[in-house]
Formats: sequence, structure tokens, C-alpha cells
Amino acid sequence: MTETSRKRRSDGRVTITQVAALAGVSPTTVSHVLSGKRIVAAETRGTVHEAIRALGYRPNTIARSLRTRRSHMVAVVVPDITNTFYSVLTRGLADTVDGAGYGTYVCNTDGKVDRETAFLQDILDRGADGIVMASVDAASVGALVPADMGVPVVCIGGAIDHPRVDLVTSDDEVGSYKVTRHLIDRGARRVAMIEGPPDSGPARIAGFRRAMRESRLRVDRALMVSGDWTRLGGREAMRTLLGRPPQRRPDAVFCANDLMAIGAVDAVHEEGLGVPGDVAVGGFDDVDAATIVNPALTTAQNPAYDVGVNAGRLLMSRLEGEYDGAGRTIVLPCPLVVRDSG
Amino acid sequence: MTETSRKRRSDGRVTITQVAALAGVSPTTVSHVLSGKRIVAAETRGTVHEAIRALGYRPNTIARSLRTRRSHMVAVVVPDITNTFYSVLTRGLADTVDGAGYGTYVCNTDGKVDRETAFLQDILDRGADGIVMASVDAASVGALVPADMGVPVVCIGGAIDHPRVDLVTSDDEVGSYKVTRHLIDRGARRVAMIEGPPDSGPARIAGFRRAMRESRLRVDRALMVSGDWTRLGGREAMRTLLGRPPQRRPDAVFCANDLMAIGAVDAVHEEGLGVPGDVAVGGFDDVDAATIVNPALTTAQNPAYDVGVNAGRLLMSRLEGEYDGAGRTIVLPCPLVVRDSG
Repeated sequence: MTETSRKRRSDGRVTITQVAALAGVSPTTVSHVLSGKRIVAAETRGTVHEAIRALGYRPNTIARSLRTRRSHMVAVVVPDITNTFYSVLTRGLADTVDGAGYGTYVCNTDGKVDRETAFLQDILDRGADGIVMASVDAASVGALVPADMGVPVVCIGGAIDHPRVDLVTSDDEVGSYKVTRHLIDRGARRVAMIEGPPDSGPARIAGFRRAMRESRLRVDRALMVSGDWTRLGGREAMRTLLGRPPQRRPDAVFCANDLMAIGAVDAVHEEGLGVPGDVAVGGFDDVDAATIVNPALTTAQNPAYDVGVNAGRLLMSRLEGEYDGAGRTIVLPCPLVVRDSG
Repeated sequence: MTETSRKRRSDGRVTITQVAALAGVSPTTVSHVLSGKRIVAAETRGTVHEAIRALGYRPNTIARSLRTRRSHMVAVVVPDITNTFYSVLTRGLADTVDGAGYGTYVCNTDGKVDRETAFLQDILDRGADGIVMASVDAASVGALVPADMGVPVVCIGGAIDHPRVDLVTSDDEVGSYKVTRHLIDRGARRVAMIEGPPDSGPARIAGFRRAMRESRLRVDRALMVSGDWTRLGGREAMRTLLGRPPQRRPDAVFCANDLMAIGAVDAVHEEGLGVPGDVAVGGFDDVDAATIVNPALTTAQNPAYDVGVNAGRLLMSRLEGEYDGAGRTIVLPCPLVVRDSG
């Protein structure tokens, strides 16, 4: 507790001095009970806790936030924390900002723009000091509002041109190119792609298309289907592909993320076919499940933890006043990981 | 923005009125720019944003928190958000409290008591309104401090006897009993257990021991090994078990969670042995990966999402003043899920 918090205030808030007076102990003893850093006799602790309850005393960080204009909280806006990529990213971010005394506040948008907008408003209302935003729609202007208000924003993926917005992205185009190219080099000729939802992840589609073009293979529009990033969505999309006449079925599929690739493997197996014998499958992200599924996924590594760490560092450099310049971009490589599925 | 926030204050904070004056617009226009709920001409928006930046204006929720003594934030303390069980629990909690306007703040303790203590102090300092605590150590007294201060606490698992602490737990004893009993009913006689770290998860060990006892099988101390809840830890523990002389090896292993069970499957396969032919494997939790691993895991369902939802409801009932009584306990069942590993 700071010295200030011990002074009597005129705003009606309960002070440590009042707690101490009611408990019949010194303010220092109350501080010790609150901090837990010194041993205080059980009976005294009990008396102090009773006084705290009776007066409704609350610690002082909110008041301090008001003075310093800092909430010491960063928000991370993700489609869904139960998607491993985002939980690992969040962990990397939390580990990085924790040391500087910042907490991490999580918002799940389910990839819906209206939820994203509502959360951004909420984040501003709460006075979060910084925002890490894994927006579904890279072109979303949502991030611009906090940035305009002087709250540093780090976007994950996408490309937002704004003087105060930093960007951490993984090299999805090259990663997708490498996975697709690998499927082709192994003999695939009718290569399908299970994309994310419409208007998402253009870089992964671009990498797929470049690999096809450089290999002089035609991109069959009927073999480009959308999933919703989930395992079920991937299974559904693969079923659509397998529902085509046998000679028009794909012999390989590049999936824009591992969860959909796992769903694609499900669908191939349900059809009584083999992976990679009948249909080779490539994913993207290299989540833990990529080595749990059978066959293990050939994929591109998406460095989720490092993305979170880098986002945290970019935020902290602005929050600590070490940097106040133009938006920076950090591009992390996505190396090809060859396993058994393709 | 509230009416109050438009009045000039004596505490040196920038008000909306000051922003409006500098921008040469009405306070109402500033409110519209901030809320985004009305359309404001791009040029006007730009001018308002410039004024906001120049004055360092920050929205008013922090000041409101001070008046209402509410931060509208609940903290969830978990060992590791990248463990699917905790990310799904967190999602259930967030979905439940979100509707009432509460944000979710995540703390990763890595199962370390000192980190847990530090986070609890931090949570109190921030003025979080409620805490959901998945402590590693059920006997941890950490939760008592916030509860003593009148901050509602919901503990996940364990058994804490405190008038203000609610408890949401899954019926781990019965779930573990069922998985172990199933392994025995399928013919296992030398059943090992990969436990969590020492002093964690007594209910799962109790269920295992009861199934062994009721089947008149001896619990071999050498077949009780500890893991650290991770896949690597499970693999390591299984290697220890497989390192024993062949006639003393287990013919089945019950693992206290699925991640360790997946690691155990890894170790059995690395030894050139089969699951369940040579060693049957049972897990606990029924995470997504349980159906991704091959063979798919026989396990007990741990209703992670429902645990989060129930924790959120218990907290909200106290925060909304609907309940102010003794600590409640909600026990959720963990049904047996039979798949191919055992």
C-alpha cells in the first residue's frame, strides 16, 4: 500500500487508516495482513479481516489507475481461446507482459465482427493500456479507433496501415506455398484447398495458388471449399469434396489450418479411404494435435507462442515509452514440417 | 458516456467537455465519436481524435469503477491456459459472465504456489469482483484471503471449507473408478497408475484404489508413478513403467489426465508394443485430442465447459446480490467414455 492510500480522502472511500482504527491495530499491521508478506498472528488477522468486511474496504489499485491513467491490463481479442493456436499465443503474451506487471484480459469474438466491435468498445471503456488483436477480418477498421485514441494496438496477421498499429504476422504465404508444393512434389495433381471462411486468410490462399501456378497445375474452382476453422467444418468440407464423381475427386488437399485438416482426415477415413494413399492431407499451424492424429500431419509451423511474445514486446516498448514511432511489422517464418499425412 | 463524465473535475483528469472545446464540437458529438453508435463525418471524427490524443483523454470506466467499487472483471486462475481443459473452462466462464458485462482476466500459475499467491495479490490489487480458482493444491489457503475480504471465490475441484467460497467440482472419484474398473473388466491384472504431481488429484487416486480393492487386486507401489499433467510427463512416466522387468510390467495403466495418457501411448508405441493389446490405456478429461490419438482414448468425461458455466453462475449470483449465504458445492458427473485404447 502506498503512503497516499493511508491518508483520509474526501471521496467517501474507505481507507486503511479507518480499517486500522476499527480493528484496533496500526495501519502498518493492516498492510501486512493485506500483503501477506509478514507473519501476523491469526487472531489479529481475523480482526483485521472483520474490519475490512464491515467497512467494505477495497484495495487501492483502481484509485492508482485513475491517477496514473494506467490499468496495467492488456486485452487480447481472439476468435476462440479454445483453439490451441490462440491459447498458446495468449500464453506467450501473458508470460511477456506479466514481468512488467500487466494482466491479460481475454475476449472471444467467435470471428464475428459485431462481437469484435463490442469488445473493442468494452476494452476502451475499461481503460486497457494495450490491445493485441487477432481479428478475423484483416481489413477490419475496429483496431483504428483505439489506436486513434492513443492506445497501442498490435494486430496479429493481416495488414493494417496505421501509424500507431504494430503488426506481428507469420509468413503464411510462404508456409502455404511450401506445404502445397510438397504435396505436388509427392505426386498430387488434383489438389484441393479447404480455406477459412470467405474473406479470411488471403495469404494462405495466395501461397496455395503460387505453388499450383509454378507447378503448371490448374486451380479447379470446384476444389476450393470453405470451412470455419474447426474440425467439424473441415470434415464437412472434405465430405463435399469426396461427394464429387470419383474421377473429379482431389488426390490431395491443403487445409488452411490443422483443425480442419484433422477433420479432413476424419472424412477420408469415414469414406473407407486412406491418407495419404488415396488423399494426401496438408495442414497449417502445427498444433499439438498435429502429432496426435494418425497419420501425423504434414503442416507448416505457425509459431504461436513467439507471436504472443513478440506482440507483448511491441506493446511494452510503447507502454514503457521506449518507442513512439511508426507501425512496425515483425514477420515470423513458418517452416515446413513433413510427417505422414502427405 | 454518463452525464457525470461531462462535468469538469478538480482532480486534473481530462473531461469530454475539454475534448469538445479543443475540437470545436459539442460534447454530444464527442460521445458519438467515442461510442461509434452514430455516424459522424470523417473530418469531424479526425478532429475529435486529434483532440483526444492532444489532451490524453481516457474513457471513464476507471472513474466509474471507483464510485461503484466494481471493476466488472473476474479473474480465472489456472495452471496453464494452453491445457485444453482450462481453455474450455475459461470459455464457459467468459460466455457466462460476458452477458452481465464482466470481462475475464486469465492468470497462468504453472501449478506453482508462489505464482498463485502473487496472482491472488495482484487480483485483489486490481479490484477484481470475483475469482475462479483452479488451484493445483486443493488445500491452498490462498483462496481464503480474497474471500475474507468479501470477494467471491469459486474453487474448481478440491474441497475448501469457507463460508464465502463456492465449489464446482467434477466427480473425479467415480470417474476414475469407472475407467479403472473398465480396464480390469477387460482383463487387466497388473494395473498401473500415472498420477499427477505429488499431493494433487487425491480423488482420482482414490477412485483407482477403490476399483482395485473391489476387484481384489493389489496396488503395486512400484506401478504408481507421478507425471506433471503433460504429454511429455506421461511419456516419461510410462517409460519408467516399461523399464521394469517384463514380468513386472503393467498390462494396463490408468492416467490421471488425457494428456499424460497420450504420452503413455507414445511410450508404448516407441517400445514397439501395442495399445491396448500389450498395455491398455485409460485417461481422464475427454479433451479433443482423446479422439485424435490412435487408438482413441477410453476416458472419463470432464465437463470443462459446464464447469466454467457453473462457476460463472455461482459468481454472478453473489455479485448480483441474489445469494449471500454459505458456500455451495456443485458436483458434475464424469461419465465413462469407452473407445479403443482400453
